[in-house]
Amino acid sequence: MDRRVLLASAVPAALTTAALNSGTPATAAPRRPRADDVLQVRDIGSFHVGGRAVTLTGAPLRDAFAGPDQPPAVIDPNGDFEVGQVYVQYCALARPVSPHPLVMWHGGGLTGVCFETTPDGRPGWQRDFLGHGHDVYLTDALAGGRAPFARYPELSGAEPRFRTKRELWELFRFGPAGSYTTEPGHRAPHPDTLFPTASFDTFVKQVVPRFTTYTEATQHAYGALLDRLGTSVVLTHSAAGPLGFAATLAAPHRVAAHVAVEPSGAPDPDTVDLASIRHVPHLIVWGDHLGLDDDPGGSWANLYSSTRRFHDALLAAGGQSTWIDLPDHGVTGNSHMIMMDRNSRDVADLIASWLRRHGLG
Amino acid sequence: MDRRVLLASAVPAALTTAALNSGTPATAAPRRPRADDVLQVRDIGSFHVGGRAVTLTGAPLRDAFAGPDQPPAVIDPNGDFEVGQVYVQYCALARPVSPHPLVMWHGGGLTGVCFETTPDGRPGWQRDFLGHGHDVYLTDALAGGRAPFARYPELSGAEPRFRTKRELWELFRFGPAGSYTTEPGHRAPHPDTLFPTASFDTFVKQVVPRFTTYTEATQHAYGALLDRLGTSVVLTHSAAGPLGFAATLAAPHRVAAHVAVEPSGAPDPDTVDLASIRHVPHLIVWGDHLGLDDDPGGSWANLYSSTRRFHDALLAAGGQSTWIDLPDHGVTGNSHMIMMDRNSRDVADLIASWLRRHGLG
Repeated sequence: MDRRVLLASAVPAALTTAALNSGTPATAAPRRPRADDVLQVRDIGSFHVGGRAVTLTGAPLRDAFAGPDQPPAVIDPNGDFEVGQVYVQYCALARPVSPHPLVMWHGGGLTGVCFETTPDGRPGWQRDFLGHGHDVYLTDALAGGRAPFARYPELSGAEPRFRTKRELWELFRFGPAGSYTTEPGHRAPHPDTLFPTASFDTFVKQVVPRFTTYTEATQHAYGALLDRLGTSVVLTHSAAGPLGFAATLAAPHRVAAHVAVEPSGAPDPDTVDLASIRHVPHLIVWGDHLGLDDDPGGSWANLYSSTRRFHDALLAAGGQSTWIDLPDHGVTGNSHMIMMDRNSRDVADLIASWLRRHGLG
Repeated sequence: MDRRVLLASAVPAALTTAALNSGTPATAAPRRPRADDVLQVRDIGSFHVGGRAVTLTGAPLRDAFAGPDQPPAVIDPNGDFEVGQVYVQYCALARPVSPHPLVMWHGGGLTGVCFETTPDGRPGWQRDFLGHGHDVYLTDALAGGRAPFARYPELSGAEPRFRTKRELWELFRFGPAGSYTTEPGHRAPHPDTLFPTASFDTFVKQVVPRFTTYTEATQHAYGALLDRLGTSVVLTHSAAGPLGFAATLAAPHRVAAHVAVEPSGAPDPDTVDLASIRHVPHLIVWGDHLGLDDDPGGSWANLYSSTRRFHDALLAAGGQSTWIDLPDHGVTGNSHMIMMDRNSRDVADLIASWLRRHGLG
């Protein structure tokens, strides 16, 4: 089934790429970039933001096992370090369609890689949104990937979680509970899953140990990032969803829009000033198999409800928030990793259209 | 002092950019890309290569301290994982000057970030070589950065080393022994250092924990990478130097040239088949303050000597190897991090010229 057709016909006309393009005379406006055009890149690079200088003192000498062919090495772990910094990687175009950078914040146990090429080799959202003419900034945060972690537990506060393949398979909703097996050929994904499950083991290669003790440092670094970049479109996924909501509340003038893809919850609306973010458009996107009906007490259903409460309260406060349940628009089978699912480009197009409607693309 | 002038006048004419360009008629050949041109990018993306599926069994339940505000959480660490994979990040041009990708392999405690924007905000070698028209591939390996590490010690074999700022300052030769202080204003770098020492703490933000137990997995993954990409120019730094020499010996048909920047040693020439790599041009580049005269028993002097022995033996076997001691060419003050030093673009230009002379650019 052609999911692009489904998406175009089922999503409200205002949100479809086709509807947005249909009224544009060929000669009246600059030609919109096409997805696979050669990119005109002004610059490509990276930097770190946030973090702080920390001195470890008083830790005992360690009998560090240096490796299987080497004798134990006694080391002194004390000294000066940098802790909590976030990595930022950018690709800036010669003629971007918006003065506002598009920054993408990954979730727990992942890195900016999740927005790059999909595990089955298709262009990722970095490429898709560059194709739409946006300057794209990816980050590594939460002490994952190129955001280094410090010695634990001394400087990290806790050890990280090393999620097993089974945990990832079930948590990211590639298949129901009990459907994971070590042997790839015996796994039983959701029959309609859009995740390229034949590439699941490849996907796992990008999963990093998940720290839970770097949230505050990351929030701080993200605030510094928005100060440095100026007003940006913030696209968040999963555990970064709360970081996006918080960043918007902390600096409403710095967030042109917040696109929250399967956010793992939102603030309690009674505890925050929603009026202050009334002018910031929000787009909240959900996939499938959330267990809303058959597992209403489950973790996904809880995060979904928490986010819905925020969305409703934001609207009631005069704010702008668009809620999209892809299955309600005839698009079934999306997993938690929407940016990797086989309709990832369609969803990118939908988000890009929404941005254009808000003057941001 | 204008180091570009120094480099151009001191380096043998065959190696200078100026000499290479001076005889090119304006109309006879395609215009060579200039460093700061807009890049025509065909594609940008990433993938992981190598690694293997591993099942951890029999590890006891862990009383994992989940975080300062949370009760201890008992977790079962057993399960299936991917271990030892390498991350590869590419930027491919619409019209590269060579069919051979230029792959850059970082050293210990670093990641592909070391080839990106310098700590003081100048274009890095990724940008410089893209500007020269090369498709550039960066990697994260040795279980650093976006090459995930597995639980240690169970699956990693050993814990990593968390190098202190003092260790980094001294090891990378930004200043002499004893010249590092916690307070930035009191540090005493080498007076002629080309490293942007005012950005030292920023540099440290990209340094990752250094594992010594992933060398074999990385070597394997790099072999798989070269198989996947086809014959490539391999540029290595520091601990990746030995990996580059080994990859060339293991698959001489897959390495168009090896540029070894401050390699941490080379194979014992008596133990390898140098005739098999006779056709692979080598370029070996060294900076300053190696202690060759005043610390001849020191670690850098030893690595330098070991590499010189390999270079001499390769030439004696009829191979091709160019040895450049930058100070001998009038360029003093380079640190171990030549790609970040203030003359980094000049050295990139030198390497690019050398590649062109070998028909690789």
